[in-house]
Amino acid sequence: MSHSPVSIEALDLDPAFALHRGGKMEIRSTVPVRNADDLSLAYTPGVAKVCTAIAEEPELAADYTWVSNVVAVVSDGTAVLGLGDIGPAAAMPVMEGKALLFKEFAGVDAVPICLDCTDTDAIIETVVRLAPSFGGINLEDISAPRCFEIEDRLRELLDIPVFHDDQHGTAIVALAALKNAARLTGRDLGDLRAVVAGAGASGVAVSRILLNAGIGDIAVADSRGIVYEGREGLNPVKQALARDTNKAGLRGTTEEALAGADVFIGLSGSTTSEEAIASMAPDAIVFALSNPTPEVHPEVARKHARVVATGRSDFPNQINNVLAFPGVFRGALDVRATTITENMKVAAAEALAAVVGDDELSPDYVIPSPFDKRVAPAVIAAVTAQARADGVARR
Amino acid sequence: MSHSPVSIEALDLDPAFALHRGGKMEIRSTVPVRNADDLSLAYTPGVAKVCTAIAEEPELAADYTWVSNVVAVVSDGTAVLGLGDIGPAAAMPVMEGKALLFKEFAGVDAVPICLDCTDTDAIIETVVRLAPSFGGINLEDISAPRCFEIEDRLRELLDIPVFHDDQHGTAIVALAALKNAARLTGRDLGDLRAVVAGAGASGVAVSRILLNAGIGDIAVADSRGIVYEGREGLNPVKQALARDTNKAGLRGTTEEALAGADVFIGLSGSTTSEEAIASMAPDAIVFALSNPTPEVHPEVARKHARVVATGRSDFPNQINNVLAFPGVFRGALDVRATTITENMKVAAAEALAAVVGDDELSPDYVIPSPFDKRVAPAVIAAVTAQARADGVARR
Repeated sequence: MSHSPVSIEALDLDPAFALHRGGKMEIRSTVPVRNADDLSLAYTPGVAKVCTAIAEEPELAADYTWVSNVVAVVSDGTAVLGLGDIGPAAAMPVMEGKALLFKEFAGVDAVPICLDCTDTDAIIETVVRLAPSFGGINLEDISAPRCFEIEDRLRELLDIPVFHDDQHGTAIVALAALKNAARLTGRDLGDLRAVVAGAGASGVAVSRILLNAGIGDIAVADSRGIVYEGREGLNPVKQALARDTNKAGLRGTTEEALAGADVFIGLSGSTTSEEAIASMAPDAIVFALSNPTPEVHPEVARKHARVVATGRSDFPNQINNVLAFPGVFRGALDVRATTITENMKVAAAEALAAVVGDDELSPDYVIPSPFDKRVAPAVIAAVTAQARADGVARR
Repeated sequence: MSHSPVSIEALDLDPAFALHRGGKMEIRSTVPVRNADDLSLAYTPGVAKVCTAIAEEPELAADYTWVSNVVAVVSDGTAVLGLGDIGPAAAMPVMEGKALLFKEFAGVDAVPICLDCTDTDAIIETVVRLAPSFGGINLEDISAPRCFEIEDRLRELLDIPVFHDDQHGTAIVALAALKNAARLTGRDLGDLRAVVAGAGASGVAVSRILLNAGIGDIAVADSRGIVYEGREGLNPVKQALARDTNKAGLRGTTEEALAGADVFIGLSGSTTSEEAIASMAPDAIVFALSNPTPEVHPEVARKHARVVATGRSDFPNQINNVLAFPGVFRGALDVRATTITENMKVAAAEALAAVVGDDELSPDYVIPSPFDKRVAPAVIAAVTAQARADGVARR
């Protein structure tokens, strides 16, 4: 059952393994526990009166426990990075990493929870049972289409924020980058016709936020081509997309749809030819977001497009979720929001876009760096203001 | 929906509330996340190879995540301190406090999980689903008799330690104190006849560990009096107790059973008369453990007994679970034990008793202080050695 020390030592020669050794996080006390007096306040008997007060007035839990600052990062390990269904144990390093980012970028305490179940009802039921222990639920790396129903039903069942980051984090950052690309090229979103390749979690969410933000038209493609009303075998999520997108009535492949399009957003894991990119309209905007291999190499795309973005840190314009989720949750927790509304997501995107000043805006800089210190405060301010405007703030 | 600031401010005048404001714990990163290079190791793309390695060899999760150092402190809020069924939100300050103690006394990271369900099957199912995220499960403040079935079934279903502290923490410390009281009075456990008042979680567990440790005879009383074979209406747990205890065939009340008894252990929340204590054998040992009100005032008991212990910090000989659970889990996690055996509990009690040297042992000092720095190392050493001896250590 036990490992030979050699194998661990060999792995640790790789800096990524060495950094992960023993995990990446810990629990710390924020109060002193040095002696019997400390114990009598932090634990029995002092704790009893705090418990009694919360039992009488449940909202006091937000004031006198860590719950209102803690987000559960919940995954079933079915769609982890580009690795797919690797299970809950193997997903844990990613969820721990996510928890670190919550803390480092926005002071949100986050607990990685990898679940040993993949059934939709089981996941929903489990998260509902856990909910008293958390101020928010960040769903992560749960495969489509289950992720849609899980998020929808949890949003209905719980009075705390529920946010599937693979969907909405990506959507917020992509919208922000697209708004700035439009600004750079002197257009409004309403002027743009977009093609989204991929109808998984992020493809659907990006399409939805673009519709909410007023995109001119949008066509979404899955592995069988453009989604249109009446196409056979569409699941309910894609049926709804078919209804709300593709005003032009396109059919056929992604590459065919790109002819004359203003925007390409790749979230598919597939490849797109240089010819197809070259067939786009002038001042084309290409977001090739699949990781680690973008749909089209950014240097190739750049020959034909005005603005190119990827999901990678080694090219300009990285669409990185960490620009959104820490501030979104921080803002929601700060006002004890009961939910994260669509308006709050759009407001986060607008605030993120606005971080890039007119003097900074360029084809290679339509979105800030994750380490830009202006980002989190801007997102937090927008999210809290919109939560109040939408009537979902509890304070 | 919102509180007036005044009410919170008024509560915060109480030092217990002030200390609890905002909670008592936080998550901290143990690795740097300062720049893109750090991120590329702690998160994508570096994390992917760690995930892949764990997917191929699941045991590596213990080496490369925080899981092997993290215990879930799980409660349904049905039996919190002496407050009873106050629900999951109100239970959170206690579970947070427990998590602090894990960290402060033994470096164990612990996450408070208060569940919004009280059904036995639902709790078991939920903990099983959560299990990949934790190296151990500490059950807390779950009411009897559900706590017995929940622990038993989780122990069968999981290959990580599951430990209901209200049962076994109390049992280990009570056994340690009793061993030292016997040592002080020149007797073996086998010489002693004990009466345990209370057949809830702690009463049952104390009785069980005393049997395992070789107590001479023991009679257990519930609210209807001494438990004996054939008594009507016994639940399965009490039927088993009736079979294994009360060789003397006692019936009647706790007070009647105390006549001539060597040991009284109160875990009942009821009161015991001075007369009954006075009727005990010479060199009587009285552990009046109900909190905050002992079954008999320790100063009254001391008139008739050689050794008196309580659950309170303001009298000598405090039977405090914090003497046991941090070291028990630390030891179990250190060797990646698959379970905590009965032998490991008895070994922990023996090690705890042995911390009190012959030169220190006195009627007012049969158990160490929770702040005695010798305690955790002694318990850890005993638990790890016994785990190896019992064949449940994975390293």
